Amino acid sequence: MNMENKEMTRLAFECDYSEGAHEKILEALTQTNREHLTGYGMDAYCARAKEKIRVACHAPEADVWFLVGGTQTNKTVIDSVLARYQGVIAAESGHIGTHEAGAIEATGHKVLPLPHSDGKLEAAVLAQYLSDFFRDENRDHMVFPGMVYLSHPTEYGTLYTKAELTAISEVCREYKIPLYLDGARLGYGLVSPGTDLTLADLARLCDVFYIGGTKVGALFGEAVVFPKGNAPKQMMTIIKQNGALLAKGWLLGVQFDTLFEDGLYWTISEHAIRMAERLREGFREKGYTFFKETMTNQIFIVLDEDQRERLEQFVSFSFWERLADERIVVRFATSWATEETDVETLISLL
Amino acid sequence: MNMENKEMTRLAFECDYSEGAHEKILEALTQTNREHLTGYGMDAYCARAKEKIRVACHAPEADVWFLVGGTQTNKTVIDSVLARYQGVIAAESGHIGTHEAGAIEATGHKVLPLPHSDGKLEAAVLAQYLSDFFRDENRDHMVFPGMVYLSHPTEYGTLYTKAELTAISEVCREYKIPLYLDGARLGYGLVSPGTDLTLADLARLCDVFYIGGTKVGALFGEAVVFPKGNAPKQMMTIIKQNGALLAKGWLLGVQFDTLFEDGLYWTISEHAIRMAERLREGFREKGYTFFKETMTNQIFIVLDEDQRERLEQFVSFSFWERLADERIVVRFATSWATEETDVETLISLL
Amino acid sequence: MNMENKEMTRLAFECDYSEGAHEKILEALTQTNREHLTGYGMDAYCARAKEKIRVACHAPEADVWFLVGGTQTNKTVIDSVLARYQGVIAAESGHIGTHEAGAIEATGHKVLPLPHSDGKLEAAVLAQYLSDFFRDENRDHMVFPGMVYLSHPTEYGTLYTKAELTAISEVCREYKIPLYLDGARLGYGLVSPGTDLTLADLARLCDVFYIGGTKVGALFGEAVVFPKGNAPKQMMTIIKQNGALLAKGWLLGVQFDTLFEDGLYWTISEHAIRMAERLREGFREKGYTFFKETMTNQIFIVLDEDQRERLEQFVSFSFWERLADERIVVRFATSWATEETDVETLISLL
Amino acid sequence: MNMENKEMTRLAFECDYSEGAHEKILEALTQTNREHLTGYGMDAYCARAKEKIRVACHAPEADVWFLVGGTQTNKTVIDSVLARYQGVIAAESGHIGTHEAGAIEATGHKVLPLPHSDGKLEAAVLAQYLSDFFRDENRDHMVFPGMVYLSHPTEYGTLYTKAELTAISEVCREYKIPLYLDGARLGYGLVSPGTDLTLADLARLCDVFYIGGTKVGALFGEAVVFPKGNAPKQMMTIIKQNGALLAKGWLLGVQFDTLFEDGLYWTISEHAIRMAERLREGFREKGYTFFKETMTNQIFIVLDEDQRERLEQFVSFSFWERLADERIVVRFATSWATEETDVETLISLL
Repeated sequence: MNMENKEMTRLAFECDYSEGAHEKILEALTQTNREHLTGYGMDAYCARAKEKIRVACHAPEADVWFLVGGTQTNKTVIDSVLARYQGVIAAESGHIGTHEAGAIEATGHKVLPLPHSDGKLEAAVLAQYLSDFFRDENRDHMVFPGMVYLSHPTEYGTLYTKAELTAISEVCREYKIPLYLDGARLGYGLVSPGTDLTLADLARLCDVFYIGGTKVGALFGEAVVFPKGNAPKQMMTIIKQNGALLAKGWLLGVQFDTLFEDGLYWTISEHAIRMAERLREGFREKGYTFFKETMTNQIFIVLDEDQRERLEQFVSFSFWERLADERIVVRFATSWATEETDVETLISLL
Repeated sequence: MNMENKEMTRLAFECDYSEGAHEKILEALTQTNREHLTGYGMDAYCARAKEKIRVACHAPEADVWFLVGGTQTNKTVIDSVLARYQGVIAAESGHIGTHEAGAIEATGHKVLPLPHSDGKLEAAVLAQYLSDFFRDENRDHMVFPGMVYLSHPTEYGTLYTKAELTAISEVCREYKIPLYLDGARLGYGLVSPGTDLTLADLARLCDVFYIGGTKVGALFGEAVVFPKGNAPKQMMTIIKQNGALLAKGWLLGVQFDTLFEDGLYWTISEHAIRMAERLREGFREKGYTFFKETMTNQIFIVLDEDQRERLEQFVSFSFWERLADERIVVRFATSWATEETDVETLISLL
Repeated sequence: MNMENKEMTRLAFECDYSEGAHEKILEALTQTNREHLTGYGMDAYCARAKEKIRVACHAPEADVWFLVGGTQTNKTVIDSVLARYQGVIAAESGHIGTHEAGAIEATGHKVLPLPHSDGKLEAAVLAQYLSDFFRDENRDHMVFPGMVYLSHPTEYGTLYTKAELTAISEVCREYKIPLYLDGARLGYGLVSPGTDLTLADLARLCDVFYIGGTKVGALFGEAVVFPKGNAPKQMMTIIKQNGALLAKGWLLGVQFDTLFEDGLYWTISEHAIRMAERLREGFREKGYTFFKETMTNQIFIVLDEDQRERLEQFVSFSFWERLADERIVVRFATSWATEETDVETLISLL
Repeated sequence: MNMENKEMTRLAFECDYSEGAHEKILEALTQTNREHLTGYGMDAYCARAKEKIRVACHAPEADVWFLVGGTQTNKTVIDSVLARYQGVIAAESGHIGTHEAGAIEATGHKVLPLPHSDGKLEAAVLAQYLSDFFRDENRDHMVFPGMVYLSHPTEYGTLYTKAELTAISEVCREYKIPLYLDGARLGYGLVSPGTDLTLADLARLCDVFYIGGTKVGALFGEAVVFPKGNAPKQMMTIIKQNGALLAKGWLLGVQFDTLFEDGLYWTISEHAIRMAERLREGFREKGYTFFKETMTNQIFIVLDEDQRERLEQFVSFSFWERLADERIVVRFATSWATEETDVETLISLL
């Protein structure tokens, strides 16, 4: 293959889904390529991967389902859990309310936005909202909260601590509202020094969450975990109805089986965090303005148009948002695939 | 890898999505694995694959979109084209009305079933339905037909001829109703001796169709073609909303780029048809009862319970339906991956 | 008021919703017009009407809800009961599948059509379907049956007997599938000599049904009964979400309070049936062809175009369907409002 | 009738839909009660009412549709206009986003909330939002704005001036986004001294709006106006699909025919505004705290719990919201039905 284009000659820090899969995964897919396997996730690789995930979560009863991508997963999980008259609470910055093209509303459910603190929902804000809602004399005319959605890391790269997630979980349980955690970047979010949370904590504190593969070493794939065996009835049919049932389901099983073999998921996540720390150091040294202080694999920098133009010549990054003063926020992301030499080259060019 | 299970020791004729990808595709994915590529299908491989498809379709204006799987594609395409008050006409046996878990209805649209002839919709039946509908004095209270859905090959492995598809297309154009063709097995459906249709014919006669990859050599993936550049506005947003926008979109581009290089798509399709012809011969020789006469890669055989039990010991196949007399119909499928020796072994054991 | 048009000078047998309300209802609405009442059905008239309905149904635990019209009621009730992955079984001729503009699908659910016998679903057909479904090895990819919908009288004016409804109810209970009965014309359907069913039977055999007011003496309004107090949680919110919560809910309460005072609902239903019997006699005497033999307030007659034209000069009726031989089926309906002299005039003109 | 309950012995200022209909409407319904009329709004009264509305709007081309209630109307109109990938912009306080139980989301569309100023959307805020949206490089992953929703009067009883509405309309036209105005209380909103807007202005500046009947003298009913004849195709089918097509459609026609005869709609609206002004004066004299200064028929007062308890003994009013300091906001509403003596009695008791 020999596709020449601008994308391929620049340094790539645009996002954490710019490359294929970790070599071990590619190898596993290659080795299993000609096996004859049962479709729709009924194969032995899926079974083994699910078992490894149960062990990693300390959740022997967990129901595990493999889906292809993040929006698809959010849409399917949320729709599967909510009753008709319920919506899902999310931070105003939550991915489901901002950058999923109305996928949740397309299933008939409202996203109920709450103010956030650097992308995080606060237990006190949630508790106040729920308390107000259930005291509101007009609530029969309103969308009932039926789920709480968090992302970890958040859309701003911030992290919940164990204390914070415990507090949110307690509010949810007081109101009998399921807690759902979007783990599109879960690996990066758990190995970061910015949190003391573990996978087992999530399994204990959440009612459902997903372990992101697409951005953490897999070609694609997300593992949804209902830790108490609490998946909705006919989950497979619901997944199919959402267009989310992969015919060759074992492709997901083989990948998660590999990711959860010998801690690969954690090793590659740690690499990404190390690369991000080095890059943050570089930005700091060169005097750049950080939009948010983060400790994960995403770095948000404020640029003016001149800076943007200059940087775009040698590195790709993502537009994030425009500030009131017309400067823009951009995102640099590291990942399992980031090369140390690329980080150093980038720093030298900043 | 070393997963021992019953599936893997039996001959595999269960379906045409029991193996990974053609080796050339795997190779292309491996070679491009560490390239840094733009997400969401905005990369150069997608661009090149789309161009090859336009050429293959003789449709230089075509809009091409890559999605992951069949139900997802049907749901997204149909929802993108229909107005609120419209439904989609399909044969009663059509996949969207039977085995897609209500994915179409979940987008708010009715599947309008018409009687079929061995899985095929007939132009005359369609014309009568439409004529009746638009003369019905109560039609303002009814679901308006807003699309016609065909599958080629059909769910029974049957095929449209050029004359048949032309007749249906003419009815559709008379009533200004878009014609959509589900090509999950399109390769097998076009190289079969059972039809004189070509890809260029489809591009001429249909308003939208998809070229199936999942069952024809790809790991996964379907290429949706709007041959006259007639994709709905904001198709990308609609795809995202349906949870069908693959982050690493180039995975689809690389695969279709390979499938449409040097006619690979057709070569491997011809192999599957050859294997099916040999197997049909075998069943015929051994005196089995065919449920339908087909000329594609799917063979439908009627079995009683004893036969089923005996065969299941050495070969996997699919349950299809139960007949009134309690015998069952099962399906044997060949594919790009079928080994000639397996076919011969199976025949010897029948 | 003095609106002259063709409609008003012809005899009116078009349908059973061509006039306003029974005089007692109009009187009740007039008397209560300036009372200050709480909205959304929380008033004392609704409470009293619900209690009368519970008594009439011999269902002291019943939840009763008042809605405005039939399609709205079907849509709201069905959506409130079904899970995401479920559809509703109905006769192919069922109103929800034919003349409600896809209202059920618009809530995301499939109508699962079964063959009918003169508009009636048969217990044996239903049992076979359910048995086949739950033995189907592909059922996880299919829409699960989650409700059975009947109409009584049916769209063809036919009626279930107690034995028939009992048999259907038993099948439903065996499969734990709720049974819903659409009673748009329930009064006419229960007082007819063609059935031995009573309101108490419905409350015993169904899981939910509605008592039609719009076509049986009310200005508008339908009373939904969940006989075992089994309404879904937050039914009021679901009704509101469906746009079906009348602000001045007492308008419905006042009407049903009047309809169930001194058996008015039954008295006026009996009048309509008597008128229909006399009219059927007339058609029979004049040698007309009946499309179906019915014993309710709807009479289906087969006409050729000449007959249609002649009759249209002095009487309005409804187009029903077109037969293969191009003759048409039309419907003559009587109602609580039909004047005996109009029936005699019509017969004399036939 | 003789229903004794607490509601009926207290003064009633709870809302503007606590009584039936203006006597002239009741009279018209009574006079037409036994006429034989064609259903679904195809009758001569509907035709005449539509024509009167066209005249009143100075919009001879207008399409007019009659629906039953407000949420139903909002849901049906918004769903009929939006494309799949679009949402509707509304003030955060907008009725569709707060007190309609997710009816808009149930049709698959997101409500896009914008900050408001006393319930009003500001042209500048809207323009900034749209400008940001169409410059956002990620917009293909976002819900596209496809309609702007205003209410006049707003949920806080505030009013747009002609200049304000013109500015909003200009922004909408610049971006080719239809402007929809919810006129549940339109009569009160147009006769108020707080605005210089007229019905003809609305027809000129909006793409669709509705003239509220339920709260302004009718038993029920809202008249949707597409002033340029710009109703979506098959609007009747869309209305039916939403469960919003009244069988006895003439009930709506007769009511609007009466409301627009001799300016009744305006006369009764003026009465309500006069009553509200007198009551506001009373509250002011007695030293009550106003939550918002309004000039329509709704008065928002801040109460502590003691005050609430005392007032509740002799007058009904609505809970509105709870302030941070635990005091509550309540609403007193006048209407076409408010008796002058009741206002004076209430003031004397305050």
